[in-house]
Amino acid sequence: MAEIKKIKPSLPKGTRDFLPEEVARRNYIFDTIKSVFRKYGFQQIDTPAFERLETLTGKYGEEGDRLLFKILNSGDYLKDAPDAELQSKNSAAITKHIAEKGLRYDLTVPLARYVVQHQEHLAFPFKRFHIGPVWRADRPQKGRYQEFYQCDADVIGSTSLINEVELTQIYVEVFKKLGIKVIVEINNRKILKGIAEYFGAGHRFEEFTTIIDKIDKIGNEGAAKELNEKGISNSGGIDLSQFRDAWDSWDIIESGLNTYFNEVSGISEDSRKGIQELLDVGRKHFKFGEDVIFNPYLARGIGYYTGTIWEVKPIGIQMGSLGGGGRYDNLTEMFGGRDMSGVGISFGIERIYDVMEELKLFPAELGETTKVLFVHFDDLSESYAFEQLQKVRAADIASEIYPGRKKLDKQMNYANDKKIPFVIVIGGDEMASGKLSLKNMATGEQEKLTIEEIISKLKK
Amino acid sequence: MAEIKKIKPSLPKGTRDFLPEEVARRNYIFDTIKSVFRKYGFQQIDTPAFERLETLTGKYGEEGDRLLFKILNSGDYLKDAPDAELQSKNSAAITKHIAEKGLRYDLTVPLARYVVQHQEHLAFPFKRFHIGPVWRADRPQKGRYQEFYQCDADVIGSTSLINEVELTQIYVEVFKKLGIKVIVEINNRKILKGIAEYFGAGHRFEEFTTIIDKIDKIGNEGAAKELNEKGISNSGGIDLSQFRDAWDSWDIIESGLNTYFNEVSGISEDSRKGIQELLDVGRKHFKFGEDVIFNPYLARGIGYYTGTIWEVKPIGIQMGSLGGGGRYDNLTEMFGGRDMSGVGISFGIERIYDVMEELKLFPAELGETTKVLFVHFDDLSESYAFEQLQKVRAADIASEIYPGRKKLDKQMNYANDKKIPFVIVIGGDEMASGKLSLKNMATGEQEKLTIEEIISKLKK
Repeated sequence: MAEIKKIKPSLPKGTRDFLPEEVARRNYIFDTIKSVFRKYGFQQIDTPAFERLETLTGKYGEEGDRLLFKILNSGDYLKDAPDAELQSKNSAAITKHIAEKGLRYDLTVPLARYVVQHQEHLAFPFKRFHIGPVWRADRPQKGRYQEFYQCDADVIGSTSLINEVELTQIYVEVFKKLGIKVIVEINNRKILKGIAEYFGAGHRFEEFTTIIDKIDKIGNEGAAKELNEKGISNSGGIDLSQFRDAWDSWDIIESGLNTYFNEVSGISEDSRKGIQELLDVGRKHFKFGEDVIFNPYLARGIGYYTGTIWEVKPIGIQMGSLGGGGRYDNLTEMFGGRDMSGVGISFGIERIYDVMEELKLFPAELGETTKVLFVHFDDLSESYAFEQLQKVRAADIASEIYPGRKKLDKQMNYANDKKIPFVIVIGGDEMASGKLSLKNMATGEQEKLTIEEIISKLKK
Repeated sequence: MAEIKKIKPSLPKGTRDFLPEEVARRNYIFDTIKSVFRKYGFQQIDTPAFERLETLTGKYGEEGDRLLFKILNSGDYLKDAPDAELQSKNSAAITKHIAEKGLRYDLTVPLARYVVQHQEHLAFPFKRFHIGPVWRADRPQKGRYQEFYQCDADVIGSTSLINEVELTQIYVEVFKKLGIKVIVEINNRKILKGIAEYFGAGHRFEEFTTIIDKIDKIGNEGAAKELNEKGISNSGGIDLSQFRDAWDSWDIIESGLNTYFNEVSGISEDSRKGIQELLDVGRKHFKFGEDVIFNPYLARGIGYYTGTIWEVKPIGIQMGSLGGGGRYDNLTEMFGGRDMSGVGISFGIERIYDVMEELKLFPAELGETTKVLFVHFDDLSESYAFEQLQKVRAADIASEIYPGRKKLDKQMNYANDKKIPFVIVIGGDEMASGKLSLKNMATGEQEKLTIEEIISKLKK
């Protein structure tokens, strides 16, 4: 690598390196979620970072298409690009001629492709989880990155509501394990449809949903104002203080929603079915208000949801939702798959990390690397230390020796920097007696012990 | 997602999906390696999938630059591209105007950038490991992919040979844990330099190394022929049967190499130092021939190695090396870092996977997903089964219920497909007596047990 131009090290905007401690913390979150996914029978899959652009384009709306990272074709990629568009520098028209691949934008479209492509090798209902980075050419800002992780669990090919119950249980169990207080908000898109119908807005349900989805930001009044300005109701004004009852039991939800829906005509049968689905998921399995509550205006903007929808809100901290999901039909249709209903949830890893950091929920020992560091003064003590180290490692204790000749304080700093809780200082006395001084780096205490005693102490 | 054109699901050439069983097997390899890395005090880091092209270009030779995947700039990327080159369709000249980012080609250049960029936040000597995908626009062929995983451990900022000893130990320990019989071949680039000097080829060391590196493929004679045709020696013909002694102990290596080197004049002091380094790593710590052997013609083509080099060869199976590495100086120089010597090893994950599959070394239980599946006949038994399932999960046993109403054989197939070892069939008898039939799917045996008995049996 001769004569390489020196450059200042930096990263593309919107991307991040992770320091060892950050990786340990992120792994803690991933591992906790994975262990619960596995306990419920979900299997991990993986797909490539990039897909054919044909697979991705048109799935995320115009905005989404714009935010796809496209990969330049290899070789003489301009060869077959049309001259006219090149000369007029028509970037939009040229792209499809010079880029055939794009970085995945989420894990959902790859899942749909995967299920159709590999259906003969999968056990259905297919319960899969997938954790990995996705990429979006979004304008970077605080908390928003061009590369970030998604973490999804889905069941494909089963309409049973048991899946909804189990996915709700997974949310509850994961956040309990992480120590984050949350409430799982649940609704059903069919109920939301009924609410739209109640307001005379059933015929403009998508617009209704998009605006309702913003209630958390703009409030009841703001959303009602926008709905009414757009004239979405064909039966007069919309008043979003309705449906804001004290929904404090599943029975009240049943009678309350039915009362509303019986008030007006034109509520579809499908909407009433939504109430039944909600109760089937909730009533038998969750004590209302404890882990799960009903939110009639929970909307989940994403167009493809058709049944149960969730969002997970942290309690006692100002932060958006830590997860969300829902039931969707026909995900696989776009790839020519047979009709398969699916239902899934996702965890917002980046936000979960921020909450845990802010509330100091990461276990202290996460920072720890090895249990003990051997330090030494010269070749002889280094050699002796290295021999003792072999015994410690043979007992499967993560342990290290400071490599090379450095002053004692430098070696001690290394232990502190790596949060190694114990240090064994080897000198002449230790070599002569076989009694080694084990120093507790937190308390400063020192004990003289044989290597066997040290091993049994560290094993605990 | 209305009116989406249906397309046949497929992947870009050279990329792969991973089925659940493959992910489980890959995770087994990753987890085994990680556990050993951690035991030796290495910490995991992560870097983004893409880097600034400026960071990557020029680091991998001309061929490497060609194989970098480049990411098209967002927005109106043609705006500032020079007209003349666009009109002449000069792809090579246009690239730098329309692409600023590229997918990482390996984990080594990102490491160099990372160390310089974050040096104030790292503990030195910095012992890091990194496992992740890298991307190369290589022509895909059997066993060669455009997206594949690398798995590296390096120590940056320490010249101590203890690092070499520990990295060798890591190789030995990992492959023992995986159950793969290997031999770690070791050499030192300084010794190789001495050998080149012995042959009168010290002044053309790079060419010498490149050809020597092919010995495994073209044999002693083939390599000697190529060396001699190119007239690399200035002291007559090169005979590679020399240095092919029976190197069956560290003492023989010491005396043998010294004998060779004393035969001719002009062997540099540095080359003799190589012998000392090799002995310091090997003699005290490894019984020669057991796990480690000396290979005087091990070359590791990569230009930047300067000291110890390794390659790991599987025993009893026709397959290339399963890992390799070495010591290098000045890795960080290209990013303006101070002089830091480094030494590292890498594991060839894809080949390790192939070896383990071919030799059937993956533990049988890896395929297992959950321990037990509840099957049922109607709403009543499903509901009863779901209650029992809660008790099993409360005992932290991975377990499932078949979601929804399907015939018994369909439910049984699901258990078989997912390699679930036990099935609990719930019917009227079971609900009446509380004695559940636990079926062992491998043997077909059935036992009538209470749920508590089942839990304690599955816990074992």
